[in-house]
Amino acid sequence: MATVTSLSRPVLDLNADLGESFGTWRLGDDEALLAVITSANVACGFHAGDPATMRRVCRRAVDAGVSIGAHLGYRDLVGFGRHHLAVDPEDLADESLYQLGALDAFARAAGDRVRHVKPHGALYHAVTTDPGQAAAVVEAVRRFDPALVLVGPAGSELLRCAERAGLATAAEAFADRALEPDGTLRSRRLPDAVLHDPEEVARRCVEFATTGAFTAVDGTPVPVAARTLCLHGDTPGAAALARRVRTALSGAGVALRPLGAPRRAAVSG
Amino acid sequence: MATVTSLSRPVLDLNADLGESFGTWRLGDDEALLAVITSANVACGFHAGDPATMRRVCRRAVDAGVSIGAHLGYRDLVGFGRHHLAVDPEDLADESLYQLGALDAFARAAGDRVRHVKPHGALYHAVTTDPGQAAAVVEAVRRFDPALVLVGPAGSELLRCAERAGLATAAEAFADRALEPDGTLRSRRLPDAVLHDPEEVARRCVEFATTGAFTAVDGTPVPVAARTLCLHGDTPGAAALARRVRTALSGAGVALRPLGAPRRAAVSG
Amino acid sequence: MATVTSLSRPVLDLNADLGESFGTWRLGDDEALLAVITSANVACGFHAGDPATMRRVCRRAVDAGVSIGAHLGYRDLVGFGRHHLAVDPEDLADESLYQLGALDAFARAAGDRVRHVKPHGALYHAVTTDPGQAAAVVEAVRRFDPALVLVGPAGSELLRCAERAGLATAAEAFADRALEPDGTLRSRRLPDAVLHDPEEVARRCVEFATTGAFTAVDGTPVPVAARTLCLHGDTPGAAALARRVRTALSGAGVALRPLGAPRRAAVSG
Amino acid sequence: MATVTSLSRPVLDLNADLGESFGTWRLGDDEALLAVITSANVACGFHAGDPATMRRVCRRAVDAGVSIGAHLGYRDLVGFGRHHLAVDPEDLADESLYQLGALDAFARAAGDRVRHVKPHGALYHAVTTDPGQAAAVVEAVRRFDPALVLVGPAGSELLRCAERAGLATAAEAFADRALEPDGTLRSRRLPDAVLHDPEEVARRCVEFATTGAFTAVDGTPVPVAARTLCLHGDTPGAAALARRVRTALSGAGVALRPLGAPRRAAVSG
Repeated sequence: MATVTSLSRPVLDLNADLGESFGTWRLGDDEALLAVITSANVACGFHAGDPATMRRVCRRAVDAGVSIGAHLGYRDLVGFGRHHLAVDPEDLADESLYQLGALDAFARAAGDRVRHVKPHGALYHAVTTDPGQAAAVVEAVRRFDPALVLVGPAGSELLRCAERAGLATAAEAFADRALEPDGTLRSRRLPDAVLHDPEEVARRCVEFATTGAFTAVDGTPVPVAARTLCLHGDTPGAAALARRVRTALSGAGVALRPLGAPRRAAVSG
Repeated sequence: MATVTSLSRPVLDLNADLGESFGTWRLGDDEALLAVITSANVACGFHAGDPATMRRVCRRAVDAGVSIGAHLGYRDLVGFGRHHLAVDPEDLADESLYQLGALDAFARAAGDRVRHVKPHGALYHAVTTDPGQAAAVVEAVRRFDPALVLVGPAGSELLRCAERAGLATAAEAFADRALEPDGTLRSRRLPDAVLHDPEEVARRCVEFATTGAFTAVDGTPVPVAARTLCLHGDTPGAAALARRVRTALSGAGVALRPLGAPRRAAVSG
Repeated sequence: MATVTSLSRPVLDLNADLGESFGTWRLGDDEALLAVITSANVACGFHAGDPATMRRVCRRAVDAGVSIGAHLGYRDLVGFGRHHLAVDPEDLADESLYQLGALDAFARAAGDRVRHVKPHGALYHAVTTDPGQAAAVVEAVRRFDPALVLVGPAGSELLRCAERAGLATAAEAFADRALEPDGTLRSRRLPDAVLHDPEEVARRCVEFATTGAFTAVDGTPVPVAARTLCLHGDTPGAAALARRVRTALSGAGVALRPLGAPRRAAVSG
Repeated sequence: MATVTSLSRPVLDLNADLGESFGTWRLGDDEALLAVITSANVACGFHAGDPATMRRVCRRAVDAGVSIGAHLGYRDLVGFGRHHLAVDPEDLADESLYQLGALDAFARAAGDRVRHVKPHGALYHAVTTDPGQAAAVVEAVRRFDPALVLVGPAGSELLRCAERAGLATAAEAFADRALEPDGTLRSRRLPDAVLHDPEEVARRCVEFATTGAFTAVDGTPVPVAARTLCLHGDTPGAAALARRVRTALSGAGVALRPLGAPRRAAVSG
């Protein structure tokens, strides 16, 4: 749920996955998204991203006042981290720490540092329900920097485990996904699982930011405890949709604030 | 040349390449060398090393009071970083920064941090003579942490470039390599290029630590400006030879001191 | 069960995993095993193995009259293919075909060709019970060369699926594993799961070759329908144990015959 | 020079680099080029390409009557094979053989087989002048299938070495590159090195096909001994330019014939 601050001005973060190019291959519209979001989940070279891309994205994020987070993935370039890889929790903690350190070097060279962590793809799904995988990511964050914010689905093992370890968490909601009345995401197998109309998505985001609830597919309001909204950047029209969401939130008086405590002052919508 | 300190007790560092295992494949005798050396060059996953190995080596190095350095290599696992890879200097700087950050995460999780940098294999050869490749490594260090010590051959482009950038440097000599009268390493194509007799190697190391010169193949003394001696760990008998060198240096009153300023007090021989 | 041929001389194949080195890292004693086995499962570069290793092993296998098979693995070098990787069946078929073609090039350059297929590590476990993963490997073999023999556990999905597709199969038993009375392998969590005494292992192998049954942990004979015995090569003493098994089988009049139809005449024990 | 056949109808091959996607990352317009070219250089997974992409491209090439060749590259995904990698010739031969075998499996599964070989990127440059690297590629082809055609620059070490080994060769010219009066490619550092006007490029290709010469930058005709023209597919407008070239060649009565002997009858322009 969007935090209510002084005189009830709602506060929200907008996050997106960036730096998903690899070598000669380009993916996503990082520039367009950096003008919209407040927190960037940056790929660290395991499922996507390479050192040159990481440098460029970190520098541009700092220029844009966008907070940098590590988008941790399984070591699976050809599968873009979308294949579950059954690594032992101890190894997963090490692989996570490796990615955190690598990205932080670029974030620091750009004048900031890594401020949040969000698992990617199959790892995101794994940490939602698997206590061992969730604990491994939390352990890596604990070892690396206990000030980082863990981002994941509301009610996930990841966030529960992080909270038990005393780490800050931020549940996320998806701007463009339809919800069942019980708050779960509508299955992608159904044709209306993903919303494509920018106006509709923007209206839902404002509704959520101001009321703390989304309208489910049956028309009932479903409260969602999320501090950050995830925007997508890798589909046609994604950047335009993201811009529309930001404009609508600003127009509704929602304050947009990065997950971490960024170098620059909090960006108001 | 070994630094002469208070009341002329000579000071020297002993370095070796560690953490060169990869996954199920083991290489080198890290445990034996950690009992001998004062500075470890730890592989960072590009030519060797993996996150679990990096964690183990960093933890053991801290336990042993051994200073941790990044052994930077080209992205060439199958060739163990021994193939020259003509990456652009800008990309090499990024690939170096990535490796530095990744290793530093493990060094910090173990209670210390990365304190020196030494290029590996084909990159070591490249930075000896190629100004662009040398400048790229120096640039990565400058961005990451200007307090790091750059290790390389005396008279190399790497050390010249590092000094111009105001970085600390440490020239290294090789404990077990025969020298030509002009101070260059005797070609490995010649049968007597590498010394195998522990007594002879130990005697030469003491000679160097106390006089600042090695005896060349023609019997003449050749002054060598080095602050650290490189020991090898990947051949049979290497660990025994390393132990013999350390014992001899201690017996001769040489103080052994890590390249960086380690967590623990300097280790006397 | 060992096939009974002319005048009831039992026939058996001995297989082992070879070519598991990678670059500078060595694993296993390929030379010793090539003098013992009749069929080699050669790693194809995804979980282990590299082109130079594949060339050497194929050439030596042909010299030794050992039949060459593809040891297919998940793309997981750092985990040695021991992590389950949830690739889609269609992708798994493609990744299998890729490995088959790559190894076959070396087998043909050495004068033979790939004659059998055995999944490795986590893929071996997956194809035992997962119909989709099993079908993917079978589909790759069907596309590549329907004359190949599929090797896997007796009663596995892999062998069932291969038989339905009209492919030749060979169930395998493990020379050094204790069996439960129901024929399953004794869990590795129990101390007596793996047999280490060469005499005992050799005696069991002869028992199996001549009676078609192993003695289970409770002393009862358990019939096992296997055409090939798997020997291990990556532990101390493994090569000596393998030699002892071969000598015992030869002494008992068992004919050792490769899975495929090798370049050279069948090798009698 | 375009071969002159019965009643002087000129014959030419059109080649392009295909299958350069990797996992989720897409590159090039394979479909559009398959409708234009007669020979496809297919990436084999070292600098680009993955098993699923290789399968798709091979199947589509066979459907389109386009001959399949192996586009061999250095093991350098992040650099797209554009970095020179100083592998030993023996290793390069093995890495080439590996790629050849892998691609051939997909070509055969699609009903054809690999019929030519063209080095890619930094390897293309290396084999132009380096006898050791050229000999390694030739050796791999000789071991794999001496019927394959080697494609490279006219006058290159690669073609010389292939001819000495008794292999078929095909020199290639570039449809869209300006030439110096001595027949060398105009440096890419000069603004007029690459021709972008489809009409101009098409006119030059017809000129070459019918006269055996291109017009150099100074207006003089320069004879070029090439059997195949390379078209590019990875830039905006590339597919349209390629189509224009094909239409112009057909209109001029040039017969377009693949480098290998394809499954289907030769395709006339």
